[in-house]
Amino acid sequence: MRTIRLTLAYDGTAYAGWQWQAGQSTIQGELEGALFRVTSEKIRVVGSGRTDAGVHAQGQVASFTTSSQLSSDVLMRALNATLPRNIAVLAAADAPADFHATRDARRKRYRYTIHDGSVRDVFHLRYAWHVYRRLDAQAMHRAAQPLRGRHDFASFQTSGSGRETSVRTILDISVVRDAEHGDLLHCEVEADGFLYNMVRAIVGTLVEIGRGARHEGWAAEVLEARDRRAAGKTAPAHGLCLLRVDYD
Amino acid sequence: MRTIRLTLAYDGTAYAGWQWQAGQSTIQGELEGALFRVTSEKIRVVGSGRTDAGVHAQGQVASFTTSSQLSSDVLMRALNATLPRNIAVLAAADAPADFHATRDARRKRYRYTIHDGSVRDVFHLRYAWHVYRRLDAQAMHRAAQPLRGRHDFASFQTSGSGRETSVRTILDISVVRDAEHGDLLHCEVEADGFLYNMVRAIVGTLVEIGRGARHEGWAAEVLEARDRRAAGKTAPAHGLCLLRVDYD
Repeated sequence: MRTIRLTLAYDGTAYAGWQWQAGQSTIQGELEGALFRVTSEKIRVVGSGRTDAGVHAQGQVASFTTSSQLSSDVLMRALNATLPRNIAVLAAADAPADFHATRDARRKRYRYTIHDGSVRDVFHLRYAWHVYRRLDAQAMHRAAQPLRGRHDFASFQTSGSGRETSVRTILDISVVRDAEHGDLLHCEVEADGFLYNMVRAIVGTLVEIGRGARHEGWAAEVLEARDRRAAGKTAPAHGLCLLRVDYD
Repeated sequence: MRTIRLTLAYDGTAYAGWQWQAGQSTIQGELEGALFRVTSEKIRVVGSGRTDAGVHAQGQVASFTTSSQLSSDVLMRALNATLPRNIAVLAAADAPADFHATRDARRKRYRYTIHDGSVRDVFHLRYAWHVYRRLDAQAMHRAAQPLRGRHDFASFQTSGSGRETSVRTILDISVVRDAEHGDLLHCEVEADGFLYNMVRAIVGTLVEIGRGARHEGWAAEVLEARDRRAAGKTAPAHGLCLLRVDYD
């Protein structure tokens, strides 16, 4: 048996998220279906983590074991030929036998995109949250900096996620206005792991600051509260994209 | 009666083009439907020109006359509230009574986008033509330069378009690799008018040069031939976007 590591991009608009669900179209389900068509094996794939319905990926990582003799390059081409067009395998490689995309993930980086022009942008409807009021990107960036480091992020977690601890380490967080498209803001967050809806709760909180409804110190106060009710609302899924997953 | 000028953006993916057609979803049809809902008048809209099925616009211009008393700003907001989300009014303004978006157009600028990465880009499926082989953008740019100026572009016209003359003036033409996204090429063409499928025929021709199947002088030879059969195939519609229309 071989272990294969895949890097995937997908437009999540049409999917009920990463994880297989009966009667639903999911990324994992499409990938396992494609693997069956290519290898005739019923293969169970694991991802670096679940992405929710509507969330996109530019660099999701998945792994699986197979007895197929196809080279990783041929496997990649064959999968791309049979996958729906809105899912693409960007890379495929043999990995150490014990490689596991979920367990071995060390860092992930997400990007959340906001469009704050007064009129909707028809080309970003699927990829950016449209906030009609102009946001102060620099204030949002400054407000986010106290979230760096190792903290209990209970305030930025949707309850019922069942994780043992809500302590995580944010390694990088920034809010930047797009240099080319002045009506887009990108909020990027890199961490050793993420709680359920963590990026979307952080973005919902920062937007309150960006539109002037809350002061810049509010994000740090929310963090300190360790109570989800203290934070802003959860930003919608379609602005979120998993950029990258790092392994040792 | 007032004359109103609109600037529009649309994602053309779901539409059978600009022009009204019975039983088809078109941009003109959606716009006239929205105007009826807003003004209760049956208004006929004219555009700067027709865009084909699947072609997008960032700056299409349209005009119409109305007896509505709504300010142009209120009209714009009302139209945006009732139009499908993939059509947006970017600007609305009162224009001189005799303004006519088709007749008065002096220059138009189109962008054609090509993706030449080896794996499809799931986020550009609707907006870029995927050419699997790496293209030489600089060779395409050089090859395009003889098309500048006033020429008979009969070689780059789909027959049956019924225009009286195939002489047009190309004011600017360029092929540039995207600075941020290295797998995208943009071919922009500005002219005093365009023949039917002209940009798409030019792009189909330049791609033959970019992939090395034809030499750099071939585009000039095709122009000289004044025969559509001399040119490359017509590039697909979804890579094309009407960027801008200029008036006196």
